[in-house]
Amino acid sequence: MAKIEKAACIGGGVIGGAWAARFLLAGIDVAMYDPHPEAERIVGEVLANAERAYGMLTMAPLPPKGRLTFCKTVEEAVAGADWIQESVPERLDLKRSVITQIDAAARPEALIGSSTSGIMPSELQRDMKHPERMFVAHPYNPVYLLPLAELVGGQKTSPETLELARAKLAPIGMKGVILKKEIEAFVGDRLLEAIWREGLWLIHDDICDTETLDDVIRYSFGMRWAQMGMFETYRIAGGEAGMRHFLAQFGPCLSWPWTKLTDVVDLDDALVDKIAEQSDAQSGERSIRELERIRDENLVGIMHALKGADGGKGWGSGKILADFEQNLWAHAPRRDYRPTREPLDLMEIKVLPSWIDYNGHMTEFRYAQCFADASDALLRLIGVDRGYVTAGNSYYTVETHTRLLDEAKLGEALKVSAQILPSSDGKKLHSFMSLTRASDNVLIATCEHLMLHVSSAEGKAVPPAPAVMARLEPLIDAHRDLGVPEGAGRSVGQKR
Amino acid sequence: MAKIEKAACIGGGVIGGAWAARFLLAGIDVAMYDPHPEAERIVGEVLANAERAYGMLTMAPLPPKGRLTFCKTVEEAVAGADWIQESVPERLDLKRSVITQIDAAARPEALIGSSTSGIMPSELQRDMKHPERMFVAHPYNPVYLLPLAELVGGQKTSPETLELARAKLAPIGMKGVILKKEIEAFVGDRLLEAIWREGLWLIHDDICDTETLDDVIRYSFGMRWAQMGMFETYRIAGGEAGMRHFLAQFGPCLSWPWTKLTDVVDLDDALVDKIAEQSDAQSGERSIRELERIRDENLVGIMHALKGADGGKGWGSGKILADFEQNLWAHAPRRDYRPTREPLDLMEIKVLPSWIDYNGHMTEFRYAQCFADASDALLRLIGVDRGYVTAGNSYYTVETHTRLLDEAKLGEALKVSAQILPSSDGKKLHSFMSLTRASDNVLIATCEHLMLHVSSAEGKAVPPAPAVMARLEPLIDAHRDLGVPEGAGRSVGQKR
Repeated sequence: MAKIEKAACIGGGVIGGAWAARFLLAGIDVAMYDPHPEAERIVGEVLANAERAYGMLTMAPLPPKGRLTFCKTVEEAVAGADWIQESVPERLDLKRSVITQIDAAARPEALIGSSTSGIMPSELQRDMKHPERMFVAHPYNPVYLLPLAELVGGQKTSPETLELARAKLAPIGMKGVILKKEIEAFVGDRLLEAIWREGLWLIHDDICDTETLDDVIRYSFGMRWAQMGMFETYRIAGGEAGMRHFLAQFGPCLSWPWTKLTDVVDLDDALVDKIAEQSDAQSGERSIRELERIRDENLVGIMHALKGADGGKGWGSGKILADFEQNLWAHAPRRDYRPTREPLDLMEIKVLPSWIDYNGHMTEFRYAQCFADASDALLRLIGVDRGYVTAGNSYYTVETHTRLLDEAKLGEALKVSAQILPSSDGKKLHSFMSLTRASDNVLIATCEHLMLHVSSAEGKAVPPAPAVMARLEPLIDAHRDLGVPEGAGRSVGQKR
Repeated sequence: MAKIEKAACIGGGVIGGAWAARFLLAGIDVAMYDPHPEAERIVGEVLANAERAYGMLTMAPLPPKGRLTFCKTVEEAVAGADWIQESVPERLDLKRSVITQIDAAARPEALIGSSTSGIMPSELQRDMKHPERMFVAHPYNPVYLLPLAELVGGQKTSPETLELARAKLAPIGMKGVILKKEIEAFVGDRLLEAIWREGLWLIHDDICDTETLDDVIRYSFGMRWAQMGMFETYRIAGGEAGMRHFLAQFGPCLSWPWTKLTDVVDLDDALVDKIAEQSDAQSGERSIRELERIRDENLVGIMHALKGADGGKGWGSGKILADFEQNLWAHAPRRDYRPTREPLDLMEIKVLPSWIDYNGHMTEFRYAQCFADASDALLRLIGVDRGYVTAGNSYYTVETHTRLLDEAKLGEALKVSAQILPSSDGKKLHSFMSLTRASDNVLIATCEHLMLHVSSAEGKAVPPAPAVMARLEPLIDAHRDLGVPEGAGRSVGQKR
């Protein structure tokens, strides 16, 4: 699979910083150039937001974070990079000169993407020596969570460049969509500008305030568009007769009276004041940091919801997250499990917002989720992976005993370790897991867990494959002398 | 709280049928008038979709479904109704004459809402005797899931009417937003039409195809708009400097070259063919029914994700769902728990799409969720409700033992029953729950469950309040002679 080896970010504001975060959290080293005196602080804040979001986004093993280096020159930053992302302010002269400078210093085959939200790539690549590898890669804020990059080539861009860019974005969880032709503002900002223009008129003419307009969006078509776009949604509206029927019904509306407001509203001081005041009334109780936090949690939640959609295959951004995680698992080094006489460290997680009850505590059944995920991690450790399961063998949980001893709170880091109990013989895998708070090692919960190894062909419990047994047996032996942990073998309510 | 007592639906297509489903599933009787020969079939299909969606949407106790009656005349349908929803085809002359007919036959104070997506209410109410109670209530497809109704008054509509309409929509899970002024197409369709017009140009000019355009939406701003609208999103983009800063940055773009495409595209045969073909290529593999199913599951998933947002308080459509459920619980008749010598039926649920693993089976930790929800139901039964908990007392789960005996599959109906074990004394609540498949009573799983009653003020286990004890004790007594159920008192892996 095509893979970004080393990235350079030229320009490190909210967009450039978030590109850097995407790369770094996917394990890619980033060289950053930004002459702004506060660049390091700004990038650091964006990266902190991104790390927080990724802590919630996935339990798949993120690779070790890439190394972030701040460079003194463009030349130093682009040296050796195979993906260079330009995110300097939105002025043609500035962008063109920076891109020309990148072009001169970069390896000739390095990809050069611009984050411009509107300037045509043909304009940007005009003075390049190797313009065939330059294109627009237009992302959406927050770049570290939203998957989209619009990929737009200019007159001199080679088609292979766009395909390669798309392939290189996939492993970092991004969806590159290639436009057929360049056009100012591309597709996304064309659509956004149309609706923005109409929205400004509605505020200007006092049809509604900003909060009402936002509510209209988020309680109706905004929810539709998080998972299907405009055309697929309208296809459904056409019923079994489909898109053609919908167009026949809806088409005439285009010439209805309400199409008259296509002029550009004058964004004068009075309108700016009105919008700013209405926006303060709508959202002013919360700081921008708090709104960012809520937005990121919501986006993560939406992706999680869509990850299980369409019968578990995933849909839309949830499918992209599922693919991203598959890639993370595929590239995770198999954990070294050298059997020692210590319980095995299986997993570290953070308590997610959706896990919390109204008391601010982790809700009861999420403990079971932690232990189920940890037992999956144990299985991977002994070689029971997707391939093994697909071949018709798997471990099934048949019995568990859980004690809830303390409370876990939002955002706390937890870890799960396991001791293999001596009654395990391969066909039976009997373990005792401990969930502790990472910060102070306080024991939060324990779970005694029994799985049986089942062959789906034979429809009964059978010993595992020799390769699995060869990894499991040394573990059973190493843990044999650890003794029975406190709390194992209990029935519910049993006196100590 | 204002409440709809009896609804009439005049017109029963996809929109009118889905209004009827909203009302019926909230326990409201509906009288339907639609002269279309296939009206009953169409409404029945929409209602089936809605019932399927509500089965996934909430575990809160939906009231008994309202009664749906098909009437022979408008007069018969509106008799006695306090909310009349007009959803006939989008022609001014037809809508005006139907509304005038409704007006003449309805109780003078009955609210009359029109589902029109564009006609101004002043036009519709022109010939009414009681126009002050008429307004537009413009919903979005699928009406049974999307919360929004745009409430728009005409020149003769009283302000009290709009406030009352908003109050009456809240208990059925809808968000009525009141517009300040009437305008053709209101707010939502203004915004949609702007983006639709721009989208048609992008397809017409071969900038991209329908699938690419949809991907651009659903991988970027569609996800943002499912939870925050346009202005709140841009407020964040402005950073700590806020909305004013954003406008200063973005404002100039309005006069950039890409604002030129404000003409109305000619939706001629060639463009209709192009769109229909691209849409077939994009979505043609799936039937409309399948797309509807996926859409509804996705919308439910998004609402579930947002229900836990903002530290458990809920956000956007998730908050509306949480409020809807609170209302359902508040109005649920306290279950008759007359203690008998039978285990208590606590809960019926369906296996949701997000509960399924890649094998098509309910995943391990969702069993724990079923049992945790069932133990909550047990607590409500003995009077441990939100008010009791807020006052500082609650039961906390300390220990569970679960056996997984069979598999549960997508969409299967499951039920949970419980036997109170004799070691329960109020301070301890020790139960044994059984999860069975409703269709054939096969036992899927069991859970032995121990809770302690804790006073947060005293920070320790204490006996419950006398009112709770008075409801619990007869249960303990009634179950005392049931004997120890098979599987209770087990430790993990214990021989039988």
